[in-house]
Amino acid sequence: METTLIYSVPFGCSFASIAALEWSGLPYRLARVEAREPASKQHPAFLAINPLSQTPALLTHAGAPLLESMAILLHLAARAPHKGLGFAQGTPAYDRLNSVLSFLHTTFHAAFMPAFQASRAAPDDTRAAIWREMAIEKVNKSLAHLERLLAGRAWLASETAPSIADAYLAATARWAEPLQLASLADYPHVARVLAALEQDSGIRFTHAIEDGLPATSQGGFLGHLALDQLALPAG
Amino acid sequence: METTLIYSVPFGCSFASIAALEWSGLPYRLARVEAREPASKQHPAFLAINPLSQTPALLTHAGAPLLESMAILLHLAARAPHKGLGFAQGTPAYDRLNSVLSFLHTTFHAAFMPAFQASRAAPDDTRAAIWREMAIEKVNKSLAHLERLLAGRAWLASETAPSIADAYLAATARWAEPLQLASLADYPHVARVLAALEQDSGIRFTHAIEDGLPATSQGGFLGHLALDQLALPAG
Repeated sequence: METTLIYSVPFGCSFASIAALEWSGLPYRLARVEAREPASKQHPAFLAINPLSQTPALLTHAGAPLLESMAILLHLAARAPHKGLGFAQGTPAYDRLNSVLSFLHTTFHAAFMPAFQASRAAPDDTRAAIWREMAIEKVNKSLAHLERLLAGRAWLASETAPSIADAYLAATARWAEPLQLASLADYPHVARVLAALEQDSGIRFTHAIEDGLPATSQGGFLGHLALDQLALPAG
Repeated sequence: METTLIYSVPFGCSFASIAALEWSGLPYRLARVEAREPASKQHPAFLAINPLSQTPALLTHAGAPLLESMAILLHLAARAPHKGLGFAQGTPAYDRLNSVLSFLHTTFHAAFMPAFQASRAAPDDTRAAIWREMAIEKVNKSLAHLERLLAGRAWLASETAPSIADAYLAATARWAEPLQLASLADYPHVARVLAALEQDSGIRFTHAIEDGLPATSQGGFLGHLALDQLALPAG
C-alpha cells in the first residue's frame, strides 16, 4: 500500500507534509480536501480517518491513520533517514529540530487562529476586532522569536539543507501578510529563509499542487486519489 | 553538569517534565519560577535561557538550553530508552506517541489559553466572557477526542505503563475543573487514566514539589537550585 496524504486548500498547514513527502523520495499519493466546501471537509471517508476533520492526515504504508502535522513530519523524516529531513534520537540536532518544530506547531500556529476565526465571523460580529488584535500581537511576538533563532543560520535546524521545520515555516509564515497581521520586511532573517525556500523544487511542486497547476515531481508522487477512493483505516 | 529543569507554579505544564525526569532515573536538579511574581518570571538568568519567559526550559547535561515542552519530553525519553517513556524512531509506537503528544501540545493546550487570559483580565473587561466561551467549547471538544483515544486502552500511547504523553495529560487536564470549563465526570476514560496517574509515585512526587511539601524521590532528584545559581547557557 502506498502512503497517502490528505491535504487541504486553501492555505493548509498540510503544505509542509506535501513538501516533506516530495523531499523524502518515498512513493506517495495525495487526496485533496477543499476546506471551504462542506461536502469535502465532512466527507465520510475523511471523517473515518480523522473525526476532527483536520489536515494533514496520513495513511501510512501499513494502512494506519496518522494524525497531527508534527507527528506526520517526524514519521516521514524517520522513514527517509538519509535525506536530512530530520535527525537521529539522542543527538543535539534532534533536540533543536523538535524545539523549533514544537514552537512552530504550538505558539506560532496558535497565534494565527484568532485571525482565521475573525475572517469567518459575520460582518456585524463585534468580537472579530478583538480576535484580530490578539492575533497581531501574538504573530509579531512569534516572528521576533523566529528572527532571533535564524540570526546567522542558513536554516532553522540544519546548516546544510532545509528540514521539516523549514517546510512548516513555509506553510505557516505565508499567512502573516495576506491576513494583514505583520510585514515580513520587519523580519529580514525570516524573509531570507522564506525566499530561499521558494526557490526549492519541492516547495515549488507543493505550490503547484495546491494551486491545481501542472506539477512535476522530482520525488515519488504517484497522483491524486479522490476522497471516495480512500481506503478505510486498518484497525 | 547535571540536567536542570526550570519549572513554574502554580499549574505549570512543566509538571509533565518533572514527572518525566523522575521516571527517567537520570540525575537532575530543579529551579522554580513563581509565575505570578515578576521578579521570578522575569529573572535575568531565566530570560537568558528563554527570552520568551516560558516554562518548562531545560539545561541539558551538556549545558545547552532546550525549550518547548514536547522537545524536552522527547529528549528525556531518548536519554532513558529502557524506561518506556517513549519509543524508537520508525516504530508504530513512536508515531502514536508523537500524534497524541502533538494533539495535547497544540489543540488541547491551546483550548485552555483563552480561559487563562480571561482569568487575568480586569473585572470590567467585557472581552473576558468571549474568551471563556471560546475555551469551554474547545476544551470539551478536545476532551471528547481524548475520550475516543482512550476507549479500551490503559494509557495514551502504551498498554503497559504511562509514557510522556500521559504525564502531559496529567499536567493539562487538571486545569479543566478549577477553571470551570468542563466536568471530567462526562469523560470517564479520561477520568480513569487521571485517577490511575494520581496513584503513581512520580506523579505524587511532582505534586509535592509543586506544593512545596516534603518530596521523596524514587529517581535521581538532587535538589533545587535558586534562579541566581543557574549556569548561563553554553553557546
